Amino acid sequence: VSHVDQMIDFDKLGGLVPVIVQDDATGAVLMMAYMNREAFAETLRTGRVCYFSRSRDRCWRCGEESGTVQELRGVYVDCDADTLLVTVRQVGGAACHEGYPSCFFRRLEDQELTIVARRVFDPNEVYHQKS
Amino acid sequence: VSHVDQMIDFDKLGGLVPVIVQDDATGAVLMMAYMNREAFAETLRTGRVCYFSRSRDRCWRCGEESGTVQELRGVYVDCDADTLLVTVRQVGGAACHEGYPSCFFRRLEDQELTIVARRVFDPNEVYHQKS
Repeated sequence: VSHVDQMIDFDKLGGLVPVIVQDDATGAVLMMAYMNREAFAETLRTGRVCYFSRSRDRCWRCGEESGTVQELRGVYVDCDADTLLVTVRQVGGAACHEGYPSCFFRRLEDQELTIVARRVFDPNEVYHQKS
Repeated sequence: VSHVDQMIDFDKLGGLVPVIVQDDATGAVLMMAYMNREAFAETLRTGRVCYFSRSRDRCWRCGEESGTVQELRGVYVDCDADTLLVTVRQVGGAACHEGYPSCFFRRLEDQELTIVARRVFDPNEVYHQKS
């Protein structure tokens, strides 16, 4: 892993690279997040996609709370080696914390944002259960 | 356009939003770039995708030199409204200045980066003709 992560330019964004996440089965773009070296190494080591959260200042996995984890299928590096594309199997069918398959569930139509996807889960039920 | 660009959070990255570019026909992820408000407005106005280059400090269009322009098909906004997904018709078949259909032409395999795509054009012929 140490060899691989030297091929990637983590310096442009102060230790982070943007990561585009694509559903391996459908080709849908699911989300964008960031990895630092640690999250990248953890992703390769475990086969479960791990990101770095700037707001929480720690690594996290999609689906930690909702169960909608992402199994790594492929890692692609762009021409400048400063952006990654990962292909995943999206367990549970929803990458977005709002309950949609993709975070890009709104489309710009006639100068308005229109929801163009159906929810897979209700975020109020998944995240706020305290019983 | 002024109405629409207020729906998008250009402030997190100092006036820029990351833009994921996807081929409308194949679903392939072609590249990632950035837009500022001006590039976003220009994209909507003209239907040709326009980005902001941090290194050149100006707007640019994919294919200005190579002829491989991108016609806008769709604009999607993510849950945090800080990342865009645009779908395009990629004229000329190559989004990458290296001559590949996608900038993500290298795949991580056995801890090495392997080229997994075929060049559509030779960048030496396209960019360095001075005759």
